[in-house]
Amino acid sequence: MSIPKLQIACDHSDLASALADIKKVGDVVDIIEAGTILLLQEGEQVLRCFRAMYPEKLIVADTKCADAGGTVAKNCQQAGADYMTVICAATIPTMKAAAKEIAEIQVELYGDWTYQQAQQWLDAGISQAIYHQSRDALLAGEIWGEKDLTKVRKLIDMGFRVSVTGGLSVETLALFAGIDVYTFITGRGITAADDPQQAAVDFKQEILRIWG
Amino acid sequence: MSIPKLQIACDHSDLASALADIKKVGDVVDIIEAGTILLLQEGEQVLRCFRAMYPEKLIVADTKCADAGGTVAKNCQQAGADYMTVICAATIPTMKAAAKEIAEIQVELYGDWTYQQAQQWLDAGISQAIYHQSRDALLAGEIWGEKDLTKVRKLIDMGFRVSVTGGLSVETLALFAGIDVYTFITGRGITAADDPQQAAVDFKQEILRIWG
Repeated sequence: MSIPKLQIACDHSDLASALADIKKVGDVVDIIEAGTILLLQEGEQVLRCFRAMYPEKLIVADTKCADAGGTVAKNCQQAGADYMTVICAATIPTMKAAAKEIAEIQVELYGDWTYQQAQQWLDAGISQAIYHQSRDALLAGEIWGEKDLTKVRKLIDMGFRVSVTGGLSVETLALFAGIDVYTFITGRGITAADDPQQAAVDFKQEILRIWG
Repeated sequence: MSIPKLQIACDHSDLASALADIKKVGDVVDIIEAGTILLLQEGEQVLRCFRAMYPEKLIVADTKCADAGGTVAKNCQQAGADYMTVICAATIPTMKAAAKEIAEIQVELYGDWTYQQAQQWLDAGISQAIYHQSRDALLAGEIWGEKDLTKVRKLIDMGFRVSVTGGLSVETLALFAGIDVYTFITGRGITAADDPQQAAVDFKQEILRIWG
């Protein structure tokens, strides 16, 4: 079992505040994500800034791409992204078109999806999936449970590298002990902390304690 | 039966070329759409430009929002959008959160969705749907057919205002004769024409001929 990576999600509504937070934790985390909200507000310059500031880190464009996969992926790649997300509702041609233009594609699992579809993604050469607790679902009171862990395990058994996200805290990491998670993604779990840098370090240390 | 509106989709990768095309057809069309590609590249300034240039037109932010509906919708509304799209895979809480922050939400139908889900969207107060031929599916050889028209009719019967999009030309409009389509959405069908303004006028005239 490998050591899960830590990804900071920047879901700010403006570039300046995103950069202020990234400056605090960019050196600690493994992956820096330009969140959907931020990309829709500020565009590709987000990716260009992240790439210029952190040339050695993995950069994710969380586009949740649903169509025109080739164009969106090419744009993201040119702006500096290593990974780009596609929504699970996207067609296989969209995913294939995207996969041609950027290093790796991650399928975002939202709403209803099936393992049969997941197999089609694997067959199309997509090897990463992101398992979510939707932010709005969390606000509506849903929490991580055995039903989620079962799905994460199953996806890993199928051959996906699986990232998990949604309401994660240092304390919730232990829920995933024994599961070969690829990446833990958190935004406010770090950025909303009193000391974001310390929060990022705490996440890394807890990951090392459990998986190291 | 009302007369369908005409919507221009700006799926450019940069604001300048989008504005150059919009300048030609903005006065002719009913609705101006900031496409997903364009929003991801240039951010909210796209909506601000469109709103400033065309204060009387309906403006759509084609975010295909999958999560954080409230924040994305609020951002789009503040930048000038009347409508915002959400992906059909979004959860009901995401759709409801979005619907609170902007005049209207449109559900984008991609991949697998069910009429049972569609009823849940209606029950959540979402009254617009967008029926697609995915651009990548079109590139892979799919075309409009009776299977599509049946779904469009059914959605209208359920109570949705339904926009249709994907590879539309002036010639394909006749396929929809007798169907109470809310809006025809086209991008390259207009912008890639030798004379985009004339192409927009041709679309409007054909719509009037069939539905007028």
